[in-house]
Amino acid sequence: LREAEFIAGDWGTSRLRLWLCARDGAPLDSRTGPGAASTGGRFAETLALLTAEWQGRHGALPAVLCGMVGSNIGWVNAPYVACPSMPQQIIEACVVPVDGRVRIVPGLSCRNRFGAPDFLRGEETQILGALHLAPVLRQGHALLCLPGTHTKWAAMRDGLVEEFLTAPAGEVFALLCAHSVLVRKSADAGTEFDHTAFAQAVAASNDYPDGELLHRLFECRSRQLQGELAPHSAAAYLSGLLIASDVRGALRCLADADADAGPGAARSVCLIGDAQLTQLYARALAARGVESHEIDGAEAVLAGLSQIHGRLFDSRGMAAHGT
Amino acid sequence: LREAEFIAGDWGTSRLRLWLCARDGAPLDSRTGPGAASTGGRFAETLALLTAEWQGRHGALPAVLCGMVGSNIGWVNAPYVACPSMPQQIIEACVVPVDGRVRIVPGLSCRNRFGAPDFLRGEETQILGALHLAPVLRQGHALLCLPGTHTKWAAMRDGLVEEFLTAPAGEVFALLCAHSVLVRKSADAGTEFDHTAFAQAVAASNDYPDGELLHRLFECRSRQLQGELAPHSAAAYLSGLLIASDVRGALRCLADADADAGPGAARSVCLIGDAQLTQLYARALAARGVESHEIDGAEAVLAGLSQIHGRLFDSRGMAAHGT
Repeated sequence: LREAEFIAGDWGTSRLRLWLCARDGAPLDSRTGPGAASTGGRFAETLALLTAEWQGRHGALPAVLCGMVGSNIGWVNAPYVACPSMPQQIIEACVVPVDGRVRIVPGLSCRNRFGAPDFLRGEETQILGALHLAPVLRQGHALLCLPGTHTKWAAMRDGLVEEFLTAPAGEVFALLCAHSVLVRKSADAGTEFDHTAFAQAVAASNDYPDGELLHRLFECRSRQLQGELAPHSAAAYLSGLLIASDVRGALRCLADADADAGPGAARSVCLIGDAQLTQLYARALAARGVESHEIDGAEAVLAGLSQIHGRLFDSRGMAAHGT
Repeated sequence: LREAEFIAGDWGTSRLRLWLCARDGAPLDSRTGPGAASTGGRFAETLALLTAEWQGRHGALPAVLCGMVGSNIGWVNAPYVACPSMPQQIIEACVVPVDGRVRIVPGLSCRNRFGAPDFLRGEETQILGALHLAPVLRQGHALLCLPGTHTKWAAMRDGLVEEFLTAPAGEVFALLCAHSVLVRKSADAGTEFDHTAFAQAVAASNDYPDGELLHRLFECRSRQLQGELAPHSAAAYLSGLLIASDVRGALRCLADADADAGPGAARSVCLIGDAQLTQLYARALAARGVESHEIDGAEAVLAGLSQIHGRLFDSRGMAAHGT
């Protein structure tokens, strides 16, 4: 049996996931808990309560936490690290709350190519994990995509995050599904995701790469009225329109950083997240002729937290020098 | 005093507006009532109740109604008239419910340039009114924009609607304002619309005409975090991003129908709607170097209903031959 050495935590806005880990990051046990928005400010107590059994069995363990726990609605504010950035800078900027055995990972900030500020928090740890799990990403240019409520696209060079971009595709999808007349609330909400409708929407969107997303959304409704789209397939069609627009735009503006490929070209995109969502992005990328490989989001965050733990604590759980 | 000759009604999903009109469409009195979605199917009763006083004073008056009252959630279904279409075809396709003095105006359908079916209902009457109020629109190419929850862009030639396009810019705006983390719900919701923030968003969007809307939306939040945008100005900034995207895309795909101008060029756009919204579109058009003139939405619908009344009924309120 591998020995428990640390606690890894992904503490987002709406959910906390905790793992008891061996030194190499292998999860030995896990817990879930309330998100940062639901703890009522009681972060130390929440962590102590959920890990009491582990700490009782293995002694006081160090913990490395990433996500909104480090934001202004979190335990302590771990200020964003400005891009271009790399693992070392993130690790050095980890913040120690009152409990000296806890480290909170900072997020990243950048000025994106549209001249706007951009931020991420939690994804930096997944990216760090992906660089460990797929070392090829550390060489030359790489384009990473972390799909979700706020999908993040990260352009990397030689292991550094040079720039990233946020696309609230998941949030827009959820809002339109819940409230819009475009997607009729199906009586049988339990119907399966219509992958054919998704593919049709991706193809229809790509047929007019200069078309604005706003001018395609009404299709979700008009094709129902016309009898071309089943009401229960409208959500999948909407998903296809949104993801095709997201993918096309990201390839257009971020993939040209790859000097070896032509402008707007990318050899491959690394997708990090839940399989259900990364597979949809993989299909939209394939429709643009771009390969992808997928890394499970939980595996990536564990690998990232494990990297940070290994650099901040020695094998006896003592903080490494200088931290 | 001009004599009351007919009742004009704009019966949308959420609101009914009724006017007592002289033959030339001049409104002599008005009423409001429940939208088509709220009448519980009692259209005849609702109309009779709201117009009882007028009918009592002026005798049984003919009524011309447009909007969702003619849809499958309406009084009777007035089937869509396929584009290219013009006033004559719409007038001929008016539907008579049981009450022989009522005419219900059909909507328009088309296959838009993205290959998708598109529909409008109510706007056909505003367009008809605009053609009467601004006869120049009947000559050669004209581009009309009817901003709203579902903004409609109509490309016209020689008085015919050749094609139109729906952009649910207003719906997306309302949903994001009400539910998204992008626009923080301001404590002082009564604050005025920040026209400066709107203009900044339009300019920022136009700086990158190839940028996808999805990749700009997060700015509404990130610029707040960065201190570049006041929380109460985020809604105006979002409005600017949406309207700039809508305008740019519509000019790109519809304005090139004007053979006299270059591709993607439009001399002028006719904006039909509420002044508050048409003025925002006018500013976004001006930012693309395109002039516009505005027609009040209520004036347009009254002028359109009056045109239809004049063609369907003679001065004694009798149905004209063939209808």
